[in-house]
Amino acid sequence: MRIGLMGFGKTGKAVAEELLKDSGSRLEWVLKSSTEHSGNYASEVLGHGSRQGLIYSIQEVDLATFFKKHPVDIMVDFSSADSVHCYASAAHAKVRIVSAISNYSPYQLDVLKHASRSTAILYSPNITIGINFLLEASKFLKTIIPHADIEIVEEHFATKKDISGTAVRIADQLGLNEREHIHSVRVGGIVGKHEIIFGLENQTIRLVHESISRNAFGQGALYAAKWLSSKTAGLYTMEEVLGINAGQRRTALKSS
Amino acid sequence: MRIGLMGFGKTGKAVAEELLKDSGSRLEWVLKSSTEHSGNYASEVLGHGSRQGLIYSIQEVDLATFFKKHPVDIMVDFSSADSVHCYASAAHAKVRIVSAISNYSPYQLDVLKHASRSTAILYSPNITIGINFLLEASKFLKTIIPHADIEIVEEHFATKKDISGTAVRIADQLGLNEREHIHSVRVGGIVGKHEIIFGLENQTIRLVHESISRNAFGQGALYAAKWLSSKTAGLYTMEEVLGINAGQRRTALKSS
Amino acid sequence: MRIGLMGFGKTGKAVAEELLKDSGSRLEWVLKSSTEHSGNYASEVLGHGSRQGLIYSIQEVDLATFFKKHPVDIMVDFSSADSVHCYASAAHAKVRIVSAISNYSPYQLDVLKHASRSTAILYSPNITIGINFLLEASKFLKTIIPHADIEIVEEHFATKKDISGTAVRIADQLGLNEREHIHSVRVGGIVGKHEIIFGLENQTIRLVHESISRNAFGQGALYAAKWLSSKTAGLYTMEEVLGINAGQRRTALKSS
Amino acid sequence: MRIGLMGFGKTGKAVAEELLKDSGSRLEWVLKSSTEHSGNYASEVLGHGSRQGLIYSIQEVDLATFFKKHPVDIMVDFSSADSVHCYASAAHAKVRIVSAISNYSPYQLDVLKHASRSTAILYSPNITIGINFLLEASKFLKTIIPHADIEIVEEHFATKKDISGTAVRIADQLGLNEREHIHSVRVGGIVGKHEIIFGLENQTIRLVHESISRNAFGQGALYAAKWLSSKTAGLYTMEEVLGINAGQRRTALKSS
Repeated sequence: MRIGLMGFGKTGKAVAEELLKDSGSRLEWVLKSSTEHSGNYASEVLGHGSRQGLIYSIQEVDLATFFKKHPVDIMVDFSSADSVHCYASAAHAKVRIVSAISNYSPYQLDVLKHASRSTAILYSPNITIGINFLLEASKFLKTIIPHADIEIVEEHFATKKDISGTAVRIADQLGLNEREHIHSVRVGGIVGKHEIIFGLENQTIRLVHESISRNAFGQGALYAAKWLSSKTAGLYTMEEVLGINAGQRRTALKSS
Repeated sequence: MRIGLMGFGKTGKAVAEELLKDSGSRLEWVLKSSTEHSGNYASEVLGHGSRQGLIYSIQEVDLATFFKKHPVDIMVDFSSADSVHCYASAAHAKVRIVSAISNYSPYQLDVLKHASRSTAILYSPNITIGINFLLEASKFLKTIIPHADIEIVEEHFATKKDISGTAVRIADQLGLNEREHIHSVRVGGIVGKHEIIFGLENQTIRLVHESISRNAFGQGALYAAKWLSSKTAGLYTMEEVLGINAGQRRTALKSS
Repeated sequence: MRIGLMGFGKTGKAVAEELLKDSGSRLEWVLKSSTEHSGNYASEVLGHGSRQGLIYSIQEVDLATFFKKHPVDIMVDFSSADSVHCYASAAHAKVRIVSAISNYSPYQLDVLKHASRSTAILYSPNITIGINFLLEASKFLKTIIPHADIEIVEEHFATKKDISGTAVRIADQLGLNEREHIHSVRVGGIVGKHEIIFGLENQTIRLVHESISRNAFGQGALYAAKWLSSKTAGLYTMEEVLGINAGQRRTALKSS
Repeated sequence: MRIGLMGFGKTGKAVAEELLKDSGSRLEWVLKSSTEHSGNYASEVLGHGSRQGLIYSIQEVDLATFFKKHPVDIMVDFSSADSVHCYASAAHAKVRIVSAISNYSPYQLDVLKHASRSTAILYSPNITIGINFLLEASKFLKTIIPHADIEIVEEHFATKKDISGTAVRIADQLGLNEREHIHSVRVGGIVGKHEIIFGLENQTIRLVHESISRNAFGQGALYAAKWLSSKTAGLYTMEEVLGINAGQRRTALKSS
């Protein structure tokens, strides 16, 4: 599987690390906003010997031809919401897209949806397998015990200012008011921990996800990319990726 | 829903408490091995005012006629494996059965299966909703990340001697060697805690169940009884009870 | 050790249970506000065979003579702040007092302090050993790593309305603004859990206390009573009970 | 404070990172076994701009004169047990030593003790502040509740083969048989977690330490180095570093 990566910030680099490690895929190129590292190989910037992932800057390429000149099977996007303007060109070149961007505007979301008419796009604001499992499992548990009390506790490093977007998404999907039911703990250097607590009179159930490093995003992207590689044009979600594994469940979820 | 209860030990009493509290069901009688409390009402023995659950001893009743003279919709069994010899009579009287017995012999299991040709029987060695959810969710997670390391940690009161039967069952269903992958912690008065840990390189997922009191068994039995009340003859499992709620999943699981 | 108990509500009864179980002490009497159970033995009301703890109502006794007619070594108070008006009479009769009341007014606190001139009084709003250890250990940890971020998460049953008084006390002693640093989770039937999280850049330390039942208060009271039984008049705190142990320990450590 | 560092492996580099970050100290040199990086600056090898920590190989220097030619206040040792043969020369040059080596032979320990007659040496096999706090706090808790059940659960990355040396040390100090009371969980990429569980009939207390990165060792070494910088010749332990604080605290508590 030939992969192109958009974004080469803190998370983008961690994702590149995982793509370079994976024997089943090859990092063809990296496309980034600034011209820093432009012309170098991502593998070298990251201290590896091989020459993979030649770095281009969006400022210096012609998008209309880029995706045809440098063909890949999947483009993985960890840059920013603005990069959505490249999706039409990529879709035109039949490049499938995994987008892990968290804050598209309604207009940008329309651009993404439009591109999904021509190619398969998987869109998920938190692409780690664990978080998406937590989301699925907690929605499932809520259907079993709808009367349970549910609270979300999220812990992150002291300098993280906002409420975890992931926690907000979990709250939304569970129908919880995020102001009342999310507890944000900010201490030291915790990478990221999310805990969903279901309380019944005589038992408590906890679903906990702990991030060890940002490389988890790369593993999630790879997992999603492999799943997406056989899909036809359309817009897909991470829930569907996991749902498929669970058998008939996706169908039930779609109709519910 | 008219309910009969077999067993009135520590757990049986906790289950009776929950049945008495439930407005949608009525505890018709309690059938127990010894003659202690025989002729009294369970509600009174438990310090409640109402007169529910007249207590009979198996030693004093004629099983051939008991279930017809004292009709119920569901019989809930928290006694011991030996009581399975009553199932044929109950099945003959079209009483559905919820069995929460943990250690049937192969012969006793055959007796139970035979009875399930005439009535609906739900059999689950750990009937709490939470534990069964953990079981289902962890099997689901294993299909998503089959390469993850999985370990089970169970904590119970210091005087509990054996490995938790629930932990053993979880290990079996996940294909784990119970000697290597179950860690049994015995301290103080912990009622019961089960934690399943899924470890990946960059993230950890924990599914945790904590028991607060034995009344959780009663809630699980009620949940199962309501589900079973509309079922035809056959043998059912707690996984199916939860699976149904999750949509088409049961089908997928059955074929897997 | 002869013990008298003030208060026979939910917590008072759990404390009486522990006093009855302890072989080193004897429950002489129970003094309570209402006249319910008056004239009965606490041991019988609680379903035990022995005859310990004759129950009196404050409404029916003459406080001026009660403590001399019914001598005890220690009086344990789990009633309410109002009962402080009995302390002068108890102190006059040389009865030592363990007070586990949480919300004295400034005036009532003066009454308690005045009584402590004549007898030894130990006053602690949360008398469980575990919580007091948490308090001591976290103050100690703060002196070691004063720059650490500290947050408190407390979990209790859904119907508990206020912030945990224990959490507030911990916050106060650690110099934390309680509105900002206490996270209150309310779900199901959790008896009580307090977690103090210390976060550094590269490590996290968690001190966790989980209550299993209210009987923990009785164990704490007994522990405190034994310590207090050799003390002269004065006002003592639970910190001192544990601190003494810390002092001996420190010396022991130096010589090892 | 001028600091010299022995060892430049995975942990040594993480320690160097912390020394470089600390404004109150300066990394004068790094002494390592092999000649790799010899002649370069540690700060440059680690990708920082400044020129700190010139790297020497033990193979290329004359130990008899090295410590006098390149004077430091403290030498921090994260290399291996063999390096203890340098301690006599360092001690002769009045260099204080922080040794974080975990497996000295009895003979090597004698060499270390001999050197401590001429200089102040702090020796601690696990130098993180958090683990040493856990050790101290759990020994303290054991004196308060000697009858409690105690179990240790340690979690590490799947490829770690042995039982955690830190867990073994905790067990030893608490008088626990390590085979029976340490539970080793090996999953995924967990950096390191140690949990000490104290169980009583009605309450559970957990002391938990989670490592986020190896840099914690550097912070512990700096903490120890600052403490050691005012000490006279002798052998010191990390417990004493924290114990001193406990002593001051105890006095403070009594007066409050």
